[in-house]
Amino acid sequence: MSKGFLNDLVLANHILVNEGVLDGFGHISVRDPNHPDQFFIARSMPPALVDLEDLVTCNLEGEVIAPNGVKTYVERFIHSEIYRARPEVHSVVHSHSPAVIPFGVTKARLRPICHMSGFLGAQVPVYEIRHDIGESSDLLIRSQELGRSLAKTLGHSAVALMRGHGSVTVGHSIKQAVFRAIYAENSARLQLEASRLGEINFLTEAEAQATSDMNDQHLDRPWQMWKERVQKKH
Amino acid sequence: MSKGFLNDLVLANHILVNEGVLDGFGHISVRDPNHPDQFFIARSMPPALVDLEDLVTCNLEGEVIAPNGVKTYVERFIHSEIYRARPEVHSVVHSHSPAVIPFGVTKARLRPICHMSGFLGAQVPVYEIRHDIGESSDLLIRSQELGRSLAKTLGHSAVALMRGHGSVTVGHSIKQAVFRAIYAENSARLQLEASRLGEINFLTEAEAQATSDMNDQHLDRPWQMWKERVQKKH
Amino acid sequence: MSKGFLNDLVLANHILVNEGVLDGFGHISVRDPNHPDQFFIARSMPPALVDLEDLVTCNLEGEVIAPNGVKTYVERFIHSEIYRARPEVHSVVHSHSPAVIPFGVTKARLRPICHMSGFLGAQVPVYEIRHDIGESSDLLIRSQELGRSLAKTLGHSAVALMRGHGSVTVGHSIKQAVFRAIYAENSARLQLEASRLGEINFLTEAEAQATSDMNDQHLDRPWQMWKERVQKKH
Amino acid sequence: MSKGFLNDLVLANHILVNEGVLDGFGHISVRDPNHPDQFFIARSMPPALVDLEDLVTCNLEGEVIAPNGVKTYVERFIHSEIYRARPEVHSVVHSHSPAVIPFGVTKARLRPICHMSGFLGAQVPVYEIRHDIGESSDLLIRSQELGRSLAKTLGHSAVALMRGHGSVTVGHSIKQAVFRAIYAENSARLQLEASRLGEINFLTEAEAQATSDMNDQHLDRPWQMWKERVQKKH
Repeated sequence: MSKGFLNDLVLANHILVNEGVLDGFGHISVRDPNHPDQFFIARSMPPALVDLEDLVTCNLEGEVIAPNGVKTYVERFIHSEIYRARPEVHSVVHSHSPAVIPFGVTKARLRPICHMSGFLGAQVPVYEIRHDIGESSDLLIRSQELGRSLAKTLGHSAVALMRGHGSVTVGHSIKQAVFRAIYAENSARLQLEASRLGEINFLTEAEAQATSDMNDQHLDRPWQMWKERVQKKH
Repeated sequence: MSKGFLNDLVLANHILVNEGVLDGFGHISVRDPNHPDQFFIARSMPPALVDLEDLVTCNLEGEVIAPNGVKTYVERFIHSEIYRARPEVHSVVHSHSPAVIPFGVTKARLRPICHMSGFLGAQVPVYEIRHDIGESSDLLIRSQELGRSLAKTLGHSAVALMRGHGSVTVGHSIKQAVFRAIYAENSARLQLEASRLGEINFLTEAEAQATSDMNDQHLDRPWQMWKERVQKKH
Repeated sequence: MSKGFLNDLVLANHILVNEGVLDGFGHISVRDPNHPDQFFIARSMPPALVDLEDLVTCNLEGEVIAPNGVKTYVERFIHSEIYRARPEVHSVVHSHSPAVIPFGVTKARLRPICHMSGFLGAQVPVYEIRHDIGESSDLLIRSQELGRSLAKTLGHSAVALMRGHGSVTVGHSIKQAVFRAIYAENSARLQLEASRLGEINFLTEAEAQATSDMNDQHLDRPWQMWKERVQKKH
Repeated sequence: MSKGFLNDLVLANHILVNEGVLDGFGHISVRDPNHPDQFFIARSMPPALVDLEDLVTCNLEGEVIAPNGVKTYVERFIHSEIYRARPEVHSVVHSHSPAVIPFGVTKARLRPICHMSGFLGAQVPVYEIRHDIGESSDLLIRSQELGRSLAKTLGHSAVALMRGHGSVTVGHSIKQAVFRAIYAENSARLQLEASRLGEINFLTEAEAQATSDMNDQHLDRPWQMWKERVQKKH
């Protein structure tokens, strides 16, 4: 089996930091194509520093099954429960990307403002952890139950916000998940800016679908650029 | 025939990325001075990575005529139809530069706020693709018909916005088109900021014309700086 | 005695500049673990250029006790009086970090908007120097008396703003103080952006406490990334 | 005579670009200490590329007196007329720094928001060229008359805005003029951000004076950092 996708997972960690989606926190995983009930993710560490030997294998209970005794992120249940609920999803990003956060803590909804953000769909759902465990949690997805509830809020969407915390983005592939995580942040910034100027003329649902389908045919183009940028720095 | 302008076209691709106008998407073209019914543009690829051997020649039907079998961008009709409609235009930039997009999706119009943005004229027209092909398109200029309609909206202006998509900027030369694309973005950012503070005192139409004429005499000055910046990175 | 913490103090100076918290001004100190009534801080100089030999030892009167005759920052009393009032505090940062300043000069209070900013507590107190020395001062904490008054405003908080000036951030360790200084700036920026969109749903006090406790277990993770970033530049 | 100040003038050009005050346009000059009716400025070129051999000497009529036949900026009259009107001024910066421009085109006035911007005084005057030559100019200070009128608007201030154009900043020395140009931009950005949050509590006039005097004793500190930053890039 070719393990090229593990190199892509390492690269995706670096790209997401370099493009401002991840900082010292956040994570990206990829489903194991040969064992769909397993996924790869880094051990608990800053994504900017992840290398091949830092990757671990988890099962859908969120347990590390290899290598022995290595710990991954507390919030691995974000990944395991979305992989369980969404068989077509093969990569998951959890981030605190900054322009997105305001849409989780106000009544304004994140919506597709241009043809690069059609994947946001009609509007982006917001997960409120208080509904599950009350008003004194540390907001982390610390259990399978919370992961399941988040996955339920996500539904069939590409992105869900987490109130006071961040967001989760999913894709059919690493490249699609990275594309969506970066353009969710870009689109949120555009919406913040446009909201200064008055009412916004968003994409229709049909435009959102059509532009999302169109962009799926061009995932390689920005990936090449992001890759080149990150490699210049290393 | 000197092909120095092809080196400038490569450089312009890199400058526009480096100055934040293009990202993984967008394109710039130049009319062939010897065959005014042809133009040069990169094949379908990220502008940051364009080199001399990536350039193709198109005709005004938007067909690649050389090299054989190479594909260019879907939206080549933006370029071909503007070259057809505007004989004095020798370079066209299509971008999704971020500060400009809010002015295409709200009722606020992009207008000249300072002496560097006089080329915007009285105000910048906005192209609405829904008027041509309804409310479920992917917003791309996929045909000669759509290109022609965009060119009609552009009229005699230097810049036209495309609702939910981006903008197109034209010039008598590569340097003028690049100057305008960069300063359209800068000016949009200034207008977004100034709009926080109350009503804006824009340039008069006569001031816009006079400053635009004045800047045309200084196109080389910022070009030298942009060139040096991009070359330091490469 | 290991002096590793002095290397961390030098590194913290560079990290805080690199992450946009300090510029040519501002300072960070660490309490001497062996002499709790003394602390280390750089001599009066730009934090970006601080090296081991630039560190001086001060007592809680704010006097440099070694090396002889070297001067430190005018505002050393910020540090000395907080160390006096707060025995559990082992590191103090004073900065003019930009997103924080608006919350010191308006009626809006800086509050915890997400799980990374729980350390802000219910809301951040604001020190008004006019209450101590009237309306014609240069706003600097030039004396033990002013330092004491600022420490009193700080109370048991992690952060206090200084009207028209900047802020002070404290921690149990250099890493905690740096974490809080960086995330106070990040959180202020998020709050500025979210305030465009309407009323903000802040963390509850219990959420603020729980997330702050949680983050204290992960202080090393972003520190590794900040360290790597700053070392790449040097 | 030591010509160290000419090296500082070259460095100041690079610093002002690197810190975002100048771009491809704008200029800084220094009065000749030995011939107070003369000043040094670069020939007409991008400030990022200025070197010692690019400096020219002008008289207070705005004529280049050496080297023979070299042209400097059209707007040299900004410098010559301010040197004529303000004997204590030894350096002048003209820029289009972006955060400042909104305060020249709206009714909002740029005012000192924190202790780093006390030099702004009570509030910053705005020059309106329409009062001198009507509503169809190219906004440039193309003559001694316009320079004189701008100098009159500046009066005894450190900074004057130019509607729809930019600003001018003066100092007793290159370091003071550079400090003020950079902190005028910083302060404008802070005021733009704070204006989102409600009414701003600005410095009193006495605080502005006291903080300005205080900062004049620390001009070397940020200069060292700006110098190191720019030299790392070259």
